Amino acid sequence: MICFGIDPGIGAMGYGVVRDVGTVMTILDYGAIFTKSGLPMPVRLRDLYNELTWKMEAHSPDVVAVERLYFGRNSTTAEMVFQARGVILLAVANIGIIPYEPKPSEVKMAVCGSGAAEKSQVQGMVRRLLNMDKPPRPDDAADALAVAITGLALARFDNHKNNGSL
Amino acid sequence: MICFGIDPGIGAMGYGVVRDVGTVMTILDYGAIFTKSGLPMPVRLRDLYNELTWKMEAHSPDVVAVERLYFGRNSTTAEMVFQARGVILLAVANIGIIPYEPKPSEVKMAVCGSGAAEKSQVQGMVRRLLNMDKPPRPDDAADALAVAITGLALARFDNHKNNGSL
Repeated sequence: MICFGIDPGIGAMGYGVVRDVGTVMTILDYGAIFTKSGLPMPVRLRDLYNELTWKMEAHSPDVVAVERLYFGRNSTTAEMVFQARGVILLAVANIGIIPYEPKPSEVKMAVCGSGAAEKSQVQGMVRRLLNMDKPPRPDDAADALAVAITGLALARFDNHKNNGSL
Repeated sequence: MICFGIDPGIGAMGYGVVRDVGTVMTILDYGAIFTKSGLPMPVRLRDLYNELTWKMEAHSPDVVAVERLYFGRNSTTAEMVFQARGVILLAVANIGIIPYEPKPSEVKMAVCGSGAAEKSQVQGMVRRLLNMDKPPRPDDAADALAVAITGLALARFDNHKNNGSL
């Protein structure tokens, strides 16, 4: 099974693509999609949509996971990132997939076994689980790999549930 | 000149299409695009995108205006509506237009001459300016007509500026 994980953002959207065979996970791709801050927002959203669609089509994922976001208060950042997240969800729907939408605490739980894990712990576990020589960079990509690992865990759980009930 | 005005929303997105010839304005269309609350968000965003694109293509607007939104605090509503707004901006970019994005106070100013006008005053002026027998319904459509009137005013101002500087 292949999971395409996404850490939503407008300046930099992290993505990580992970395949599992049984419980062995392999990285297929990771990185970030950048949009230029000088461009009008509709153009940035279009560029993000197009590049993300291209990336997803290149990997044909079975599962997509898009992290939920929380902001302490109303802010320009929240507005921009939620607008980007809307476009991301649309791009996923348009490749025919309803994504998982794990909360940050669920990502920490899936990767580290604790919903209160530190960011550095998550990144260390991602590196270990995916057998990487170096920590993944940029941070957005590292986060997205954690989201992809979470998506695989959620899909395994769903399959298990479905098999159990059939 | 034809302006397609949008009052962003996910459950109900208002739209209003207004043409001006000189300072005389005529309504071409107005209404709301609804998405079903029981559906997954990515599906609702896809339905919204598709129906909005279809509506805009039917009217071939010269100008599009999408109202900005403000929320007092982080909330589920803000998250959902900003996600919808991202998809709306994408749909506009994909018909080749960079929309105006007036603030609510700018819409009130353009329609009523005061940035602090009441909602009922705005709706009354919309009805008068567009020569309507009855108040436009639903409210989302009435708001969108006000946004369309604002888009026409902004476009006239831009044309005037451009002509002045050439």
